[in-house]
Amino acid sequence: MTDFATRLHNEIQKKQTPALIGIDPRWELLPEEIRGKAAAAGGSVAEQRARGFEMFGFEILEIVADSVAVVKPQVAFFEQLGVPGMVSLHRIMTRARELGLLVIADAKRGDIGSTAEAYAKGWLAGEDPLAAEWPADALTVNPYLGADTLQPFVDIASQRGAGVYVLVRTSNPGAAVFQDPEAGGDAVYKIVADRVTELAASTRSASVDYGCVGAVVGATWPEQLNELRQRMPGVPFLVPGYGAQGGASADTAGAFDTTGLGAVVNSSRGINFAWRSAALQEEFSEDRWREAVAEATRRMRADLAEHTPAGQLQQQQ
Amino acid sequence: MTDFATRLHNEIQKKQTPALIGIDPRWELLPEEIRGKAAAAGGSVAEQRARGFEMFGFEILEIVADSVAVVKPQVAFFEQLGVPGMVSLHRIMTRARELGLLVIADAKRGDIGSTAEAYAKGWLAGEDPLAAEWPADALTVNPYLGADTLQPFVDIASQRGAGVYVLVRTSNPGAAVFQDPEAGGDAVYKIVADRVTELAASTRSASVDYGCVGAVVGATWPEQLNELRQRMPGVPFLVPGYGAQGGASADTAGAFDTTGLGAVVNSSRGINFAWRSAALQEEFSEDRWREAVAEATRRMRADLAEHTPAGQLQQQQ
Repeated sequence: MTDFATRLHNEIQKKQTPALIGIDPRWELLPEEIRGKAAAAGGSVAEQRARGFEMFGFEILEIVADSVAVVKPQVAFFEQLGVPGMVSLHRIMTRARELGLLVIADAKRGDIGSTAEAYAKGWLAGEDPLAAEWPADALTVNPYLGADTLQPFVDIASQRGAGVYVLVRTSNPGAAVFQDPEAGGDAVYKIVADRVTELAASTRSASVDYGCVGAVVGATWPEQLNELRQRMPGVPFLVPGYGAQGGASADTAGAFDTTGLGAVVNSSRGINFAWRSAALQEEFSEDRWREAVAEATRRMRADLAEHTPAGQLQQQQ
Repeated sequence: MTDFATRLHNEIQKKQTPALIGIDPRWELLPEEIRGKAAAAGGSVAEQRARGFEMFGFEILEIVADSVAVVKPQVAFFEQLGVPGMVSLHRIMTRARELGLLVIADAKRGDIGSTAEAYAKGWLAGEDPLAAEWPADALTVNPYLGADTLQPFVDIASQRGAGVYVLVRTSNPGAAVFQDPEAGGDAVYKIVADRVTELAASTRSASVDYGCVGAVVGATWPEQLNELRQRMPGVPFLVPGYGAQGGASADTAGAFDTTGLGAVVNSSRGINFAWRSAALQEEFSEDRWREAVAEATRRMRADLAEHTPAGQLQQQQ
């Protein structure tokens, strides 16, 4: 079995970019062409929308598969559509793995004891996509319930060559409210960070200097990102907030080690709905949405290569 | 539209108990009779198990429907089984509502902005079971991402007569690790508690002194439970940890107001697998598991009535 950190770094080096593409379908933003086809096939509103999400997700995967190493479906948008949405999510995750992409399920799960274990067993397929019903390589996890509740995720991840990304400092404007209260000089997110660092050390890969336990740290908080990178050696970062949420590539620079590894940077809306973005809407009309998605992906790769240590990935090849 | 707090209190008064039954199926603990039937019908392992969960869940619902007001399916156990599990979860939630039970989906969801809104819209059906794909009356929610991320849940809940239970102090042994760091004299869970109290006040019912935003506070921490009841007027409590997790009825007494309202107390394993419990396994063999479930429910009702203010509910009738 190959551990998650090694698999992740191999794929990042192969694709020469830490760019991570979110799969975040929203019905009202889908191309009219997709909505029309999805609705014409009939069924309930949820079934129509789930079909549209699937068609759209499959196209996004095809467009980005050669350019990036990792995709991140946002589970909430599929779950909102009930069982039909979950069927589409499953197909998209399966298709992504067939295309050689790593899949991070963004579900932000968390619970206690045997319940946490159920989530871990259900989502952390790891190296073998058939090892879990939801074939994710990694899962985002919420730490609020306590360090003991992270352990089942860490154990299953270690066994299966899967990864876990624990929420440490999220990208939303109100992140500080419950994450920043200081206790004995340390903010809560730093206390979480230290436990995550211990868990990463306990799962350190034999071949790379990282464990299978990562951290979500928002690009919208560059100061904390730099500080946490220093504080959390051996912890792979997942950095949301780039692009539509306001984070610039330079804001993510602190997430990487000097070789350009150690982090993936996510963009969802800016890629999924690129033809609606300020940067591209003049150049691409809606009927050219696929080209806009490809162009936005190309620009993201170039932007990260120019303004972060991820530029090292290309020079190494 | 009738608000959640009013609907909850009406049903608690009708059934004369704050007992809440968890629907927590685990394959290896199901009666052999159910496992045999579920497996005989064929299909994948996940399909067989999901079928067993559904058969078992339906039976539990029938047994407890006249005795309690509220049930709480644990989403993780169904989600572990992939799409077949989610199909079974949906049917159990639908059946519970047909039987006149209130349904709290124990999913501990949480995310930012429009993603939180997707979870809220997907789970918070409220008064009309058809208003969301997952027909829950209420949902458990994780606050770590910040107070801004709770607002979409509160807004949708208010619109639909649904409820939200925010994790404040969970029942697990390690709950203190990230919930208790003290900041300026206040532990993190108290900071969360104060925001939840504000949200409850902003949604206060016209007919009862409670809002639609509740709190999860474990029976395993009776001191914190008493303190939080004082600190959180108008906030309905969901108290896990009674029974199998070690909390006694007296430990939950502080969760109630003087009329016996304001809280529901959960038991999952002690009811679901009553014939395996220390208290009942001598009296009930596995082939009498239904009677054991009924007896455990009767005992829980009596225990809460005797040792908590919930005894008031019977005297009021």
